[in-house]
Amino acid sequence: FSTQEPVTATLFPGDGIGPEIAEAVQKIFGAAEAPIAWEVQEIGKEVDPRTNSFVTRENLDSVLRNRIGLKGPMTTPIGKGFRSLNLTLRKELGLYANVRPCLSIPGYKTRYDNVNLVTIRENTEGEYSGLEHEVVPGVVESLKVITRTASTRVAEFAFDYAQKNGRKRVTAVHKANIMKLTDGLFIKCCREVSERYPDIQYDEMIVDNTCMQIVTRPNQFDVMVMPNLYGDIISDLCAGLIGGLGLTPSGNIGAGGLALMEAVHGTAPDIAGKDLANPTALLLSGVMMLRHLQLNPYADRIERACLDTIAEGKYLTRDLGGRSGCSDFTKAIIGNLK
Amino acid sequence: FSTQEPVTATLFPGDGIGPEIAEAVQKIFGAAEAPIAWEVQEIGKEVDPRTNSFVTRENLDSVLRNRIGLKGPMTTPIGKGFRSLNLTLRKELGLYANVRPCLSIPGYKTRYDNVNLVTIRENTEGEYSGLEHEVVPGVVESLKVITRTASTRVAEFAFDYAQKNGRKRVTAVHKANIMKLTDGLFIKCCREVSERYPDIQYDEMIVDNTCMQIVTRPNQFDVMVMPNLYGDIISDLCAGLIGGLGLTPSGNIGAGGLALMEAVHGTAPDIAGKDLANPTALLLSGVMMLRHLQLNPYADRIERACLDTIAEGKYLTRDLGGRSGCSDFTKAIIGNLK
Ligand SMILES: CC(C)[C@H](C(=O)O)[C@@H](O)C(=O)O
Ligand SMILES: CC(C)[C@H](C(=O)O)[C@@H](O)C(=O)O
Repeated sequence: FSTQEPVTATLFPGDGIGPEIAEAVQKIFGAAEAPIAWEVQEIGKEVDPRTNSFVTRENLDSVLRNRIGLKGPMTTPIGKGFRSLNLTLRKELGLYANVRPCLSIPGYKTRYDNVNLVTIRENTEGEYSGLEHEVVPGVVESLKVITRTASTRVAEFAFDYAQKNGRKRVTAVHKANIMKLTDGLFIKCCREVSERYPDIQYDEMIVDNTCMQIVTRPNQFDVMVMPNLYGDIISDLCAGLIGGLGLTPSGNIGAGGLALMEAVHGTAPDIAGKDLANPTALLLSGVMMLRHLQLNPYADRIERACLDTIAEGKYLTRDLGGRSGCSDFTKAIIGNLK
Repeated sequence: FSTQEPVTATLFPGDGIGPEIAEAVQKIFGAAEAPIAWEVQEIGKEVDPRTNSFVTRENLDSVLRNRIGLKGPMTTPIGKGFRSLNLTLRKELGLYANVRPCLSIPGYKTRYDNVNLVTIRENTEGEYSGLEHEVVPGVVESLKVITRTASTRVAEFAFDYAQKNGRKRVTAVHKANIMKLTDGLFIKCCREVSERYPDIQYDEMIVDNTCMQIVTRPNQFDVMVMPNLYGDIISDLCAGLIGGLGLTPSGNIGAGGLALMEAVHGTAPDIAGKDLANPTALLLSGVMMLRHLQLNPYADRIERACLDTIAEGKYLTRDLGGRSGCSDFTKAIIGNLK
């Protein structure tokens, strides 16, 4: 049994398949004796006027207190006058960098081998400013806002990440040939930060070309950093290379290391409650969380067991081409814990 | 020999490898007896004050007079105070729709088989408005402008295109969950237009998910229509599936069928003048031009010869994995004209 004081972490199981996969993660973490005490938080059933969102003040306070959390999928209820759950969490918690490592999973065959790249997305501004208006009927505008502060902050994050994770190169993705001021400022900040990291290579690539390069030669990439919308697009694109959002972990990082890791796939209401869901993305997000807490031995152990189970191919969920349920897949992972 | 009156078409050979591949196209068209009389236009060597671009008034007038043109790659010279060549052409000629058919080339192996989709890009507004400003030092904004007029126009183009080309479905690509007003207006217009085309299926897909779907299951797509920047990104992404910009034709269409087809790859200055360039993208753009002029028998004949030559694999250029030069590849295509 573990001698380490447990760390309290907020857990948002979320909706749809969220509770099942969150339970799977809790079981696996328990079996691995990972020193985590979960503080389970339900997202509110009604809009909290204090946050103008289904994310309540208590939800936010839990993460702010624990400084670490793990989040399952959540549906943003349809309707007007309140904000999306994901955006509320990012905004209210100041989670300025979204990190998505994208690694081929041995044994899970896709068209691409040995993908090993990381996208880092500016998570707070750009095309997500929320500033839009109708100029005259039939003419509307959205504002893309780029600031020196946020661009420098995410660039520093990307270079720090590269350095700490033994990565060699950071590529800034942009469209500064068209958006000369906004994307121009973004790459200018990246360039400035790059000078402080002489050991990390730095280059820039235009977003359309980047997408073409990603599907033709993904192995040329290492760490990529980019404004919000390009990050939204490219992180999904990269996930597609290795099998989709059901397999890719994600982390949102804020000031002072505040972190909320999340599975970015949907809530899959059609299969919810039927023991069919695949917990991999949430589990690997949990692994990211353990690494963030510098609990690497636990992270490595759980990750190994998950990847071994997929590579063995005996107890896979349907989305992975198998016939097992979430609970048998979970048991198999626990059985593979070394 | 051809009994048809020749159609005069503007030809911009462009820079770098442009002249070589334009020559290849002219030779193949000549051998196929395609009834085209080329009016060759050089892009200016200096900025024309009347257009504030290297694209001169004469260049524009040639296309406006002939109403049809073919364009090789052009480098936009670096510097300030004048506009990019591509953007000048699109803007001044009112080329509001960019069409990029993306079909797997039999014999040219990539990770994807049987790709057969078309992206249609709004070519005049959106993120390409050119409206940007610094709000305060360190805070910059770009305006994305979406209008009912341009959105409806490109949606109509997409549905017309689908109908005329025997295609079954149009998918509008957007990010209206975030850009509710701008992308919201775009899909509203698409939806309205779709009602006038009951025989064509219509659906909508969020841009990040679309990119993931494109790399996992591209065969689900048929015709896609989208705002400017998404079109820029997704058309390159799709080109990547089938082998890159060296193999994909492109057309820019304006009011009354004014059309300028173009190879969208670069000028490849490193191999220019060395008889190493691949003329396929420009040739297939020429094929699109012939179809646009309803010269389908010539289009089919040239396309067949080009695809057969690639499938045979005997006289391929280096980028296609062969050892032939542009001129031998061109001769092989001419030899394959049936
Ligand atoms: C759900 C949506 C608002 C969100 C985004 O656009 O950021 C999602 O696509 C993501 O990447 O987390
Ligand atoms: C060269 C550049 C301005 C252009 C664009 O962004 O439209 C190019 O990427 C294209 O797709 O034609």
